[in-house]
Amino acid sequence: MTLLHDDRLFPAEERTRAIARRLYAGIRGLPIVSPHGHTQARWFARNQQFPDPVALFVQPDHYVFRMLYSQGITLEELEIGQARIAEPRKVWRIFASHYHLFRGTPTRLWLDFAFQELFGLTERLSAGTADDYYDAIEAKLATAEFLPRALYERFRIEVLATTDSPLDSLADHAVIRDSGWKGRIVPTFRPDAVVDPDYSEFRAGVEALGALTGEDTATWRGYLRALEARRQYFKTLGATATDHGHPTAQTADLNEPEASRLFATVMEGTAGAAEHELFRAQMLTEMARMSLEDGLVMQIHPGSARNHNARIFTRYGRDMGADIPRPTEYVEALRPLLNRFGNEAGLTIILFTLDETAYSRELAPLAGHYPCLRLGPPWWFHDSPEGMRRFREQATETAGFYNTVGFNDDTRAFLSIPARHDVARRMDAGFLARLVAEHRLDEDEAVELARELTYGLVKKAYRL
Amino acid sequence: MTLLHDDRLFPAEERTRAIARRLYAGIRGLPIVSPHGHTQARWFARNQQFPDPVALFVQPDHYVFRMLYSQGITLEELEIGQARIAEPRKVWRIFASHYHLFRGTPTRLWLDFAFQELFGLTERLSAGTADDYYDAIEAKLATAEFLPRALYERFRIEVLATTDSPLDSLADHAVIRDSGWKGRIVPTFRPDAVVDPDYSEFRAGVEALGALTGEDTATWRGYLRALEARRQYFKTLGATATDHGHPTAQTADLNEPEASRLFATVMEGTAGAAEHELFRAQMLTEMARMSLEDGLVMQIHPGSARNHNARIFTRYGRDMGADIPRPTEYVEALRPLLNRFGNEAGLTIILFTLDETAYSRELAPLAGHYPCLRLGPPWWFHDSPEGMRRFREQATETAGFYNTVGFNDDTRAFLSIPARHDVARRMDAGFLARLVAEHRLDEDEAVELARELTYGLVKKAYRL
Amino acid sequence: MTLLHDDRLFPAEERTRAIARRLYAGIRGLPIVSPHGHTQARWFARNQQFPDPVALFVQPDHYVFRMLYSQGITLEELEIGQARIAEPRKVWRIFASHYHLFRGTPTRLWLDFAFQELFGLTERLSAGTADDYYDAIEAKLATAEFLPRALYERFRIEVLATTDSPLDSLADHAVIRDSGWKGRIVPTFRPDAVVDPDYSEFRAGVEALGALTGEDTATWRGYLRALEARRQYFKTLGATATDHGHPTAQTADLNEPEASRLFATVMEGTAGAAEHELFRAQMLTEMARMSLEDGLVMQIHPGSARNHNARIFTRYGRDMGADIPRPTEYVEALRPLLNRFGNEAGLTIILFTLDETAYSRELAPLAGHYPCLRLGPPWWFHDSPEGMRRFREQATETAGFYNTVGFNDDTRAFLSIPARHDVARRMDAGFLARLVAEHRLDEDEAVELARELTYGLVKKAYRL
Repeated sequence: MTLLHDDRLFPAEERTRAIARRLYAGIRGLPIVSPHGHTQARWFARNQQFPDPVALFVQPDHYVFRMLYSQGITLEELEIGQARIAEPRKVWRIFASHYHLFRGTPTRLWLDFAFQELFGLTERLSAGTADDYYDAIEAKLATAEFLPRALYERFRIEVLATTDSPLDSLADHAVIRDSGWKGRIVPTFRPDAVVDPDYSEFRAGVEALGALTGEDTATWRGYLRALEARRQYFKTLGATATDHGHPTAQTADLNEPEASRLFATVMEGTAGAAEHELFRAQMLTEMARMSLEDGLVMQIHPGSARNHNARIFTRYGRDMGADIPRPTEYVEALRPLLNRFGNEAGLTIILFTLDETAYSRELAPLAGHYPCLRLGPPWWFHDSPEGMRRFREQATETAGFYNTVGFNDDTRAFLSIPARHDVARRMDAGFLARLVAEHRLDEDEAVELARELTYGLVKKAYRL
Repeated sequence: MTLLHDDRLFPAEERTRAIARRLYAGIRGLPIVSPHGHTQARWFARNQQFPDPVALFVQPDHYVFRMLYSQGITLEELEIGQARIAEPRKVWRIFASHYHLFRGTPTRLWLDFAFQELFGLTERLSAGTADDYYDAIEAKLATAEFLPRALYERFRIEVLATTDSPLDSLADHAVIRDSGWKGRIVPTFRPDAVVDPDYSEFRAGVEALGALTGEDTATWRGYLRALEARRQYFKTLGATATDHGHPTAQTADLNEPEASRLFATVMEGTAGAAEHELFRAQMLTEMARMSLEDGLVMQIHPGSARNHNARIFTRYGRDMGADIPRPTEYVEALRPLLNRFGNEAGLTIILFTLDETAYSRELAPLAGHYPCLRLGPPWWFHDSPEGMRRFREQATETAGFYNTVGFNDDTRAFLSIPARHDVARRMDAGFLARLVAEHRLDEDEAVELARELTYGLVKKAYRL
Repeated sequence: MTLLHDDRLFPAEERTRAIARRLYAGIRGLPIVSPHGHTQARWFARNQQFPDPVALFVQPDHYVFRMLYSQGITLEELEIGQARIAEPRKVWRIFASHYHLFRGTPTRLWLDFAFQELFGLTERLSAGTADDYYDAIEAKLATAEFLPRALYERFRIEVLATTDSPLDSLADHAVIRDSGWKGRIVPTFRPDAVVDPDYSEFRAGVEALGALTGEDTATWRGYLRALEARRQYFKTLGATATDHGHPTAQTADLNEPEASRLFATVMEGTAGAAEHELFRAQMLTEMARMSLEDGLVMQIHPGSARNHNARIFTRYGRDMGADIPRPTEYVEALRPLLNRFGNEAGLTIILFTLDETAYSRELAPLAGHYPCLRLGPPWWFHDSPEGMRRFREQATETAGFYNTVGFNDDTRAFLSIPARHDVARRMDAGFLARLVAEHRLDEDEAVELARELTYGLVKKAYRL
């Protein structure tokens, strides 16, 4: 019995599968470069053991508990949001006895990979095997080889980016740097809470930004200087990128007096929704300008309707599986920014989407023209075998491969990192294999491309 | 010569096809559960023979005559809309000599299935075989085994839902119930004409509703009570579901005074398009509340631009093949309803779409979170092999299989029911086979899932 | 070594591939019918040799230089926009050394086809083979068999349509007609510049139209008569179609006084964006009326955000690879025109899109109903193997094959014509082969359909 077949995710057709196997063999062992994700620097700074299977696999993973929730299991039963889980074995049994819900989902692939590759489990998780799983995982977690740094090395991670507020002291990153450990954990500058006035903590954040930098953030100029200063600080701890999770991709290019007035209105707290949107839009363009100056790569992740479930948000807060994608327009939205900086080859902006209709209609045509644009990999709900296949099929013919940037695991679930990269490598191998089998590409080219998609393009795009 | 190959619709790749054959063998003989459709209870109440091939295959099937119309054949030539067809053989010959137009369409698959399985015809329909077809079908229709009840039994239907106005007496359903026949024909509560003020018969309908229930439907409260009463009445005749075919998925959650005022305005006939939309929106939320109270499952079918062809509508009325899908937004539209009832595990709302872009972007993420939501099968123009494949590929990874509800045939064409279910079973077998062949699922799981997708999930979701 | 495999673009699965080979064998040698494109009548009128490889393959092909530009190569380096290329070999080397960027794109397929089939080159283009390529191509271009007319004959083109302004004298077409050469080069009436007030040259164009026809184009009636006269003139030189590249598919059906007033406002230059849109909308309906009268087939190509890159537009003008698709709505947009002329079987309107989401949601349902509508092939960025596959998969089940119109190469790159048609033939053969392999179509039907998709439908739809 085994959870993982060697040929998993490869096309069934024999000739194509044989090519996919060869391509995959050439990239399977490449180091993991993880330029965008949501693991905690604290884990690597402190290097303490993970508490239990539930804290590892259920509690931090909204992919897991949103599915359970959708089928009538309450978050209370799962002890979501508890600082310390009272009855982890009981929660684990609930999870195990509903494991069939994940059939056909990437979560199933990621979990099975971790169960077998890390914990040596080879019988399928179910009500019947729940306790065996729990015991086996708990036992391993207590060993030295399951400490965060040991796992980082075992996973062959070359660099791992976290995502951090400009207000974060990055103390954990500093601890790691000063520890002598060779792992490379770099921060990413994610300023949403201090550039998006819809955040309840926005104004307090802008003030804190002033305190942190000695700038007068009550003024537009001081505010911008403060952001510039924090970007510099992030760079000293290894950051190479910023990230922007706005509701839309809207950009603006106001002149200084207009922008200054808008900032004042927004800070007064009297601005309406349209002014908040305009302010975010202007800030994307300001961030592009700063990127051109300081070299940080800019990531734009638009299009999520955050906290859609009011009751869950009120009770549990953000990131509880209730963010839902919505239609996202790029062509008109990005025009102001692109009119100003679109032709700068020294600028790199990586675009993501939750709206797959944009791949062939907007994103590939944009990235296939503007020198500053690159396409990020399929994101979030689309970080899945079918999602990856659609991305390659819909983006490649217009943007080519070289306007893409390899894979992002984008995960809070540290143990899923090797599984996620493995899925991406297999899907890319399968896609390239089909091109070879259909004589649209020669195999030597596919070998080269497989390495680029896995390793070369991501290092180049993120300037790592 | 044969019209139907045993392996039809299975993937060509041999390994995958072999798995598909095995999965299909396990579900081929399962009873048909048809929880949503447009057959007539009258057929089963009266159990009279179907008049002729044209009345059976051409006249009621807008899939058929819209295609002929698109290629320049007039509805007059086809005698569409005639109570009695004057020259059925002439119409049949027109249809037969244009049968090539249906190549590559699901209509072709459905018709061939009925021709061969029911009428024993094995040569392709064409101008040359038109008369043989006509004679063979006409002869069979005159036999007892082609009466509606006999066909129902032959098709192995376990339950068949019709779609009915709240103003319908359901006399035919009562006749069936009282007849001692064991067939289960249940009504579905479809209140569009009395909740959508854009219907020309809206106000008269609301008044009729009052007359039927003894409620004062000139008041908001009386109107709601009348609807509640009719839902109860539908339940006594076996109804387990309601259905709502609004132009959009918009919902609202007004307070009682607001709703009451809106109702008054709408009833005065002075309301504009925006108020009509708001009223429909509010009524979806009212219907959800009633569903939570009385247990009827709620179906929402939004997004059709009805009666697009003004000339056809004026001359022939509704449902003449001129309804065209349009872009449909769900995330913001459903928010008011979901904020109020989204977390109720006791409520079931089944969402359909004509806008396939919503599968991966909106519908699967919503259904993969909210306990009350389930995804209906591919609908109308998407009830087709490629449409089914896209649905599974785009919805499964985020919603899983268990947030879906099996198949709906949604047909007016009674004889196409077994064909349509057969297509769905084959496509699901093929989709699952691919997951098995790519080692994303084990075959024992696929066997279980095939039964769920065919039989288990539909009975559970529709509470049958 | 070879650039082209005999089985290229066919599905890898052996049974399906064998069918595809047979279907392709039946259509490979059919003449090329090219009813929509952007080659120059001047080439065939003058029949002079093409200057050099860069002028042939790089300079006129925005697919080529937009990809190079997206990767940081400037248009200056490529000498784009130069009347005479100063250092063609240097430009060629830049192109050659970046040929890997085109991996996975249709451009690569088209170029390889021309390189091997026309120039006998069989080693892949790269920095290493750049000069060999240059020399080989340059040598061939100097021979008589590479003159435009010789190539036209070698390509087995039966008819080739150009795209022309109503202000064009069509002198080159007249020269060809009078030359005795048997090639059939027909103009297409493309009036955008004189019906779209957003064109800077609009008003001057309308005046020129008056001068050309002797009509008073300062009046609405005179303007319409002038357009009618030019359509007649185009017909005398063989035109069978018009083409309309509007930003949206919006149509309108104003009465004469309204239209006349709108025309006056637009001509005054005081109209805003909404009035310009309304004027374009009205003009589509006027064009449909004229088509019904004079028999010219109407093509609508909406949905491109033209000249998105302001800097490139200012410096280089139109058609520089910076046109980006945007979401395009058809159902409401076309309603006014369709309400007026939609049921006319004597009218043919061919719809194109850059928004693939419209295929299954709007375009196939519309074309599967209205007698005047047909679907054009996948356009521009979607003229690619995956784009063609998506079109057939998403349009066929609702529109059938007979509401489509075969292939358009739509190219400025004359040498890519046979390559583009070959890709379309292979993709159609592969698609039909899959339907046969899955027993959704019999092989004799597929043979017939392959010929229709390649030759029959295009001649019929374009009235050639």
